[in-house]
Amino acid sequence: MMDRRQWIRAAGLAGVAAAAPSPLSPSLSALTQRGAAPGPLGLPRARNLIFFALDGTGFEDLATASHFSERVLGRPFFFREFLRRGASSGAMFTHSLTAVVTDSAAASTAWSTGRKVVNGALCMYPDGRPLRPILDLAREAGRATGLATTTRITHATPAGWIARVADRDQEDDIALQYLEFQPEVLLGGGAAHFLARSRRDRRDLVAEFRARGYDVVRSRRELLNSAGDRILGLFTDGTSHVPYEIDRRFQGVDTPSLAEMAGAALARLQEAPRGFVLQVEAGRIDHANHENDPGGMIWEWMAADETLRLLVDFVDRTPGTLLFVAADHDTGGGTVYGFGDNYLSSTPALLTVQRQRMSLQRFRSRLGRNPDLALLPEAVREFLGFDPTPDQVERMGRVLKGEASFGHPTAHSGDLNSLAAVLWEIPKGRVDRPNLAFSTGNHTAGTVPVALYGTGLTPAPLGVVDNTQLFSWMLEALGLSFSNPEMSEAEALEILARRGEEGEPRFRHPFD
Amino acid sequence: MMDRRQWIRAAGLAGVAAAAPSPLSPSLSALTQRGAAPGPLGLPRARNLIFFALDGTGFEDLATASHFSERVLGRPFFFREFLRRGASSGAMFTHSLTAVVTDSAAASTAWSTGRKVVNGALCMYPDGRPLRPILDLAREAGRATGLATTTRITHATPAGWIARVADRDQEDDIALQYLEFQPEVLLGGGAAHFLARSRRDRRDLVAEFRARGYDVVRSRRELLNSAGDRILGLFTDGTSHVPYEIDRRFQGVDTPSLAEMAGAALARLQEAPRGFVLQVEAGRIDHANHENDPGGMIWEWMAADETLRLLVDFVDRTPGTLLFVAADHDTGGGTVYGFGDNYLSSTPALLTVQRQRMSLQRFRSRLGRNPDLALLPEAVREFLGFDPTPDQVERMGRVLKGEASFGHPTAHSGDLNSLAAVLWEIPKGRVDRPNLAFSTGNHTAGTVPVALYGTGLTPAPLGVVDNTQLFSWMLEALGLSFSNPEMSEAEALEILARRGEEGEPRFRHPFD
Repeated sequence: MMDRRQWIRAAGLAGVAAAAPSPLSPSLSALTQRGAAPGPLGLPRARNLIFFALDGTGFEDLATASHFSERVLGRPFFFREFLRRGASSGAMFTHSLTAVVTDSAAASTAWSTGRKVVNGALCMYPDGRPLRPILDLAREAGRATGLATTTRITHATPAGWIARVADRDQEDDIALQYLEFQPEVLLGGGAAHFLARSRRDRRDLVAEFRARGYDVVRSRRELLNSAGDRILGLFTDGTSHVPYEIDRRFQGVDTPSLAEMAGAALARLQEAPRGFVLQVEAGRIDHANHENDPGGMIWEWMAADETLRLLVDFVDRTPGTLLFVAADHDTGGGTVYGFGDNYLSSTPALLTVQRQRMSLQRFRSRLGRNPDLALLPEAVREFLGFDPTPDQVERMGRVLKGEASFGHPTAHSGDLNSLAAVLWEIPKGRVDRPNLAFSTGNHTAGTVPVALYGTGLTPAPLGVVDNTQLFSWMLEALGLSFSNPEMSEAEALEILARRGEEGEPRFRHPFD
Repeated sequence: MMDRRQWIRAAGLAGVAAAAPSPLSPSLSALTQRGAAPGPLGLPRARNLIFFALDGTGFEDLATASHFSERVLGRPFFFREFLRRGASSGAMFTHSLTAVVTDSAAASTAWSTGRKVVNGALCMYPDGRPLRPILDLAREAGRATGLATTTRITHATPAGWIARVADRDQEDDIALQYLEFQPEVLLGGGAAHFLARSRRDRRDLVAEFRARGYDVVRSRRELLNSAGDRILGLFTDGTSHVPYEIDRRFQGVDTPSLAEMAGAALARLQEAPRGFVLQVEAGRIDHANHENDPGGMIWEWMAADETLRLLVDFVDRTPGTLLFVAADHDTGGGTVYGFGDNYLSSTPALLTVQRQRMSLQRFRSRLGRNPDLALLPEAVREFLGFDPTPDQVERMGRVLKGEASFGHPTAHSGDLNSLAAVLWEIPKGRVDRPNLAFSTGNHTAGTVPVALYGTGLTPAPLGVVDNTQLFSWMLEALGLSFSNPEMSEAEALEILARRGEEGEPRFRHPFD
């Protein structure tokens, strides 16, 4: 029988056992290897590739949405079923080139090019060097291409798969790059950057898209009736995103659902003789989380889950199709927290979120800047589903008038986040409103869900991968080989610092 | 070429496309199946089983700890390497029988018995029916057994693998059940429930353990020098947990590290002729998160990561050993949030957490109830590593004197959470303190990490599993078959409601 001391030595524990309390010894790293990517997954060659992006969500929202789906809608959460039927899944790091917390532009670029860039940039380093994005490589290999999203179609996540700009705000340029690229499908919100009257260069991109054979549709009805092979869908005016799902469902807002957009995209792309690459984005989970809006977030997830079912159906019936599903980063840090004695009120409190019937954004804009305080309780009851206390009504009034703000100091949108902080605060002894709390109005550094699914794919645990890894896997599946140029964090920071010294604005405020 | 309308029908999209905006149609659930467990994993038969429990953490902390490990310690995060070298991994739902947010007692019971119970109970239904826990089954099958934790050894997570009590607070009873069970290894804090002077029944369990052949050790030195085959380690007096890792490392607190406890446990258990089952718990990530203490949380994770490396080393050199790693629930909802222009200050702000040199709990108790306000700035600088603003000092004083509280209304520990809310609030234009924010002082409903590792294990993606699934997998690995009795959520709620009508206290306030 081995002596215990011998065993400790044999097990290499002597160092641990003998060390005085002190920072971890560097020698502990001997057995580990630095961050090399997990390499090829042995992916089957894919004719078609669908990438379903979930913007601004994570593993806490996954539980919230799942409990809501099962307990309120009486409907199994499809995302869970999807992981169970043979998807490869894991978690993903999301940090950008120069920050542990990414924005959607850098996140989309990481997927699209395999390289991290500075937040705010799309497929471009701060020295101006462009990177080749995945749709460019896919098209060169003969694939049809498409983008479908609930944000503006020129927004960061879709844009990062085609456009190369220093700043994601250059949306006029992004629309123009779409025109030059000519993807078969473009569906989303935000007509402003396509219309002569609102573009800086006064070009009428709608007419130019039509001239290139696109059917340009502006409503749900036009989308569903379109027979065009190439399609540009702009479902909102100005710079608006596609309305929130909660407002589409309960406020009669007439707009296509994400599933309808995805279905319309697939109906066209499936005809492509050499296959296709399509990005579908559930883009507004992020916005609801920025605004700390629990019902808004949950219904965006329900729409995403419905869309996922549609995409998985397509994959199941279409051999040679590979599906990626990934969140780009978490937003808001929203949690369903333990509430009441022994947390027993946690479930009933969560379930009250089903009484919310309007997004917080719409609620805020309906009330306006100077509402009649006497009407506030009724508005909260009707649209958010609970009775505010007199104190809450008073504070809501101050927020709406711009006289006070509440909540965490990292609000993304002052008024909305303050309103959220007041509204979702549960008064002592009450269980009549959602126990959802947020830690921030901004993005977070958390690891987020990622999954791969397709016929012929041997399910493998993905572990914790970096977001740039997905580019390699997409290339592997498409049978392509390509490598974008590199830049280190130190190089990027030096360029940014120099810019700062020269008095140029180094950064814009991150939007989402 | 298929007509687009035909395709939409063929794809089963007609219902989606035609539906007016309305709640999701129930027919959408047709293709999915309700919550059946994923079933056997094809696990190799295991002689030894190690279960590493991470109490009160999740996927956000994973990123925070990883960035800290790599950027501050210059050490790859071993958890990530572990997932890369062949672990099966996924996410886990944690809800208890009657609440979407679990406590550690119900969570431990779910792993240990395959059944969900009411929060606060250990291996017992509210009607008094006991459940057989995993260590009982393992011992019957000839395995040696052990528990090692940084909490009190009678705390919920270890206790749930042996004890059967209606209320986790019955820690005197739990210690007695340990004595009756006689696991080979018991290592943790909290001597109170073993000492005649502090037990209600005045029994001297230390003497009784000694009489049964146990070496009882009370310090790190005694642990490292012990030659006993059976060991009871009680490393703190009274009801204290083992001190926080941050205090062990930087405040000279003399106590064994979790890795040292795990090494001592394995040195004994590896001798068992028919193998063993050992639970190791990193039990105080949870406490640091309850207290919204970023440095406290991160260093508990560093100690857990060091322990994981030791456990994986053991598995690699010991054929027939299977390792489970799982968080029991998330706590605090802590996030590293995006900060500064384009979130560029996110990384430097996070890195300041390395200057924290004391747990918030110890800091609070050092300052006491009535500190000299003039000394506060120096205390914050020395132990937490940044300069508080005058306003923060003033508010700290009010919190310490019990005159004010700040932060979220779901504080677990009023003073500590209020202190945290004041301290981690970053004043405008400053980047000299950690950008870590918490949404609650309680547990959350989020899905948490889970992984399996061992020689002969074919890596498989675990998807999103229920916490009860781990019981089945442990049984499968041990070659056992057993099924505990069932109770529905409705039955349990009815019993609790009846108790409420009879004026009995239905629940205690959840501790952790």
